[in-house]
Amino acid sequence: MNETALHARKRIEIVVEAKRADDVTELLDRLGATGWTVLPVAQGRGRQGIRQSGDLSGVLDNVLILCIGSAGLAERVLAAREELLGARPAIVSVSECQVLRGERFG
Amino acid sequence: MNETALHARKRIEIVVEAKRADDVTELLDRLGATGWTVLPVAQGRGRQGIRQSGDLSGVLDNVLILCIGSAGLAERVLAAREELLGARPAIVSVSECQVLRGERFG
Amino acid sequence: MNETALHARKRIEIVVEAKRADDVTELLDRLGATGWTVLPVAQGRGRQGIRQSGDLSGVLDNVLILCIGSAGLAERVLAAREELLGARPAIVSVSECQVLRGERFG
Repeated sequence: MNETALHARKRIEIVVEAKRADDVTELLDRLGATGWTVLPVAQGRGRQGIRQSGDLSGVLDNVLILCIGSAGLAERVLAAREELLGARPAIVSVSECQVLRGERFG
Repeated sequence: MNETALHARKRIEIVVEAKRADDVTELLDRLGATGWTVLPVAQGRGRQGIRQSGDLSGVLDNVLILCIGSAGLAERVLAAREELLGARPAIVSVSECQVLRGERFG
Repeated sequence: MNETALHARKRIEIVVEAKRADDVTELLDRLGATGWTVLPVAQGRGRQGIRQSGDLSGVLDNVLILCIGSAGLAERVLAAREELLGARPAIVSVSECQVLRGERFG
């Protein structure tokens, strides 16, 4: 691996109801995220049973929000735990990754 | 990182034909997964060539199933290798992650 | 974890404009990737502001390309950095994973 080109960052992955996604992305923005990506979810099972996308009301739709940032950003996200959990995410997970152009992931 | 808030878990990622996704999620349920998330796939290339979503038959659609759980769950999933591979997944990968509210990821 | 069944690989994740996705997957093919998976993106924010899928022009759509391969493949992808960045990906990240049937991920 060309280590000089790669920069260690945190990969934050949040699964949340689609209707609450804006709460999460606004929180990420406020905490200094330089970007995020929202992926649609087709189906999920969690504590509330199975959720299926495309139901008429749309209230059961989930999305997956991916945000890559510095260790400091991940710390701030986790420190905002109460506010984050107020959006009732099903999953908040953090893993290690390495990125090209680290300056883009504050 | 606020380590006290984070719990080490395994992130299991499985890409499989959409028509076989239920076989995989039922297996995950049976092995004790507390939840899983299914993401749609737009296109893929694997050993059988390119797959494109939205073909009329639908038989070429893939999905990505994400399941976060304990090391024990990951072990049980891998031990059920024969049954899992019976669903002919294109990818079964496991990586490390840390989650908030670890008690939700058995 | 049944280590004998698992093989260490690299998980390469690239977020790029949908219209440039073919450039990236063709590069991956050329560098020896044995497969890749393209996931649709619903929304994203990066340096160019918010992107929303489904705009009439389609030019703002992003996709997420997932490719699992050997450390050698990841090295070749990163060594092709100039060509890869020519497709202007928003994110190029690499993380560690373990896969079943490692021979399928060259």
